[in-house]
Amino acid sequence: MKKLINSVDTVVTDALRGLAAAHPSLRVNVADKVVFRADAPRPGKVGLVSGGGSGHEPLHAGFVGYGMLDAACPGEVFTSPVPDQLIEATNGVDGGAGVLHIVKNYTGDVLNFQMAAELSGDEGVEVATVLVNDDVAVQDSLYTAGRRGTGATLFVEKIAGALAETGAPLADVARVAREVNDRSRSFGVALSSVTVPAAGKPTFELGEGEIELGIGIHGEPGRTRAPLREAREIVRTAMDAVNDDLPLSGDTLVLVNGMGGTPLLELYIVFAEVAAYLEEKGATLSRRLVGNYVTSLDMQGFSVTTCSLTDELTRLWDAPVETPALRWGR
Amino acid sequence: MKKLINSVDTVVTDALRGLAAAHPSLRVNVADKVVFRADAPRPGKVGLVSGGGSGHEPLHAGFVGYGMLDAACPGEVFTSPVPDQLIEATNGVDGGAGVLHIVKNYTGDVLNFQMAAELSGDEGVEVATVLVNDDVAVQDSLYTAGRRGTGATLFVEKIAGALAETGAPLADVARVAREVNDRSRSFGVALSSVTVPAAGKPTFELGEGEIELGIGIHGEPGRTRAPLREAREIVRTAMDAVNDDLPLSGDTLVLVNGMGGTPLLELYIVFAEVAAYLEEKGATLSRRLVGNYVTSLDMQGFSVTTCSLTDELTRLWDAPVETPALRWGR
Repeated sequence: MKKLINSVDTVVTDALRGLAAAHPSLRVNVADKVVFRADAPRPGKVGLVSGGGSGHEPLHAGFVGYGMLDAACPGEVFTSPVPDQLIEATNGVDGGAGVLHIVKNYTGDVLNFQMAAELSGDEGVEVATVLVNDDVAVQDSLYTAGRRGTGATLFVEKIAGALAETGAPLADVARVAREVNDRSRSFGVALSSVTVPAAGKPTFELGEGEIELGIGIHGEPGRTRAPLREAREIVRTAMDAVNDDLPLSGDTLVLVNGMGGTPLLELYIVFAEVAAYLEEKGATLSRRLVGNYVTSLDMQGFSVTTCSLTDELTRLWDAPVETPALRWGR
Repeated sequence: MKKLINSVDTVVTDALRGLAAAHPSLRVNVADKVVFRADAPRPGKVGLVSGGGSGHEPLHAGFVGYGMLDAACPGEVFTSPVPDQLIEATNGVDGGAGVLHIVKNYTGDVLNFQMAAELSGDEGVEVATVLVNDDVAVQDSLYTAGRRGTGATLFVEKIAGALAETGAPLADVARVAREVNDRSRSFGVALSSVTVPAAGKPTFELGEGEIELGIGIHGEPGRTRAPLREAREIVRTAMDAVNDDLPLSGDTLVLVNGMGGTPLLELYIVFAEVAAYLEEKGATLSRRLVGNYVTSLDMQGFSVTTCSLTDELTRLWDAPVETPALRWGR
């Protein structure tokens, strides 16, 4: 294993020190592993909190800022944050209008967010929760009951964050967050495994000419292994899975997401094929994003996420955002 | 070799189709491999043209847009663009105020840009050239006479682009571009080799516990191989090389750049150590950027680039920019 780390025990806190040094717009509690907007809490604004295992950067800490999250809680690598982190984040961003928890559907995350919501609730913070479960690949997995949450998390955080910024009440922000999740679907493909620092070796083995279709963001198995083939055929398999689950039509937001170890050059090749697929189905490529956003450490591969837009969702997507990893309009 | 491609012959053009589909703010001539700002040429504005081998994305095409480049010419992977591409770009962005060529110091690039400058000059376009040669690792290399151009290219393109946007004349834009290069230094480290699609195998071999210090962005050899060690020690070696060449002091712009295959988590760990190093030297971490900007396909590793800022350079760095890969202020 070759990694740019000081020790396997300090990976997350060392990275948080770097995050703090790189982004004065954030207030980072390195010891407790909570990343806040520097100006949190904002009085009267619904606070947005997300979190999950580290190793998916820039998710979630890279999405903390104006128009998106108010706080993020990174757990250890591929490990849920603990309730104490989530409580500190929740209480720390409550400006009196309540807090939305955005939770990817993994068993540990769900339990710990639930406990935090109850305990913060006991302290008088109103908490609503949206569960993100956009991955069509598998019904259950090593880490989940039900579908896994992947790329749509970014859409939920961006769009709900934009609505919260307008001063909308918690019920509205939660409603739009759930709507984004309901209208989103994802599918991932791995060309290589992922190596967790503490494990020191690849999570799984893939043969030289082999890919994993429907991979999870922790290296969980997908639907099947298959021989490596042309990008356009791999994309067709991924898009068919998405389209079979929720037929593509109308204005569509598309994320072509790198898993962390795949060059941007290849992601654009994938994006070209995704765009061609949408055109073939008569859907409109209305908004798009290409890059490494919801990663799996050094894994090679990509995921594609679609969201069927409404006028409201488009307007909220377009609204200004200012975070380390997503920024426009200011 | 596992890559998300359709064929080794269409890697660049397939990616350009994706770039065009992803970014309506660009006008992409896929066949000729020239990427323009959609609104080029801008009357009265100095045009900025850069280019180089593909495989370093988002450099350069990802930096085309308001406040940065007017056009970029991607060559084949790790291969200079040809003069015809550069002439089309140069003539296509000339709004009557002349054109600045931003050229990384590699022999093929230098020759082809020079030829294009002469031929566009014959057609009445005034062309100035800035050579970027910020890499302190080696004096000459497989691809260069003199120092290689790497991370400072981004600084030059951003800062000169901001000045050009104000309507400054060509001589001023060229002056500031050279000043940025003169004040910038870089050093790169590889943890793994790079695999060029057409070659199908890694460019070089690194042992399991081995790293290459002073690596080039095409996998050219650096200063030496060394055992893998803690991130803070690797960073110290890199920063010592930079600091020995141009002592760090005052307001400093820092880029910690991923080579393409390194997780963002690790880049932040590197950034924390870079920030500590600057503090130790009494320099001020004034502006910063962390991410994959000047890559080498799937190589694992990082480079660090510093630029000693003046008030003018800081102001131009902060000015609005709107490109696929770098955006703030609008």
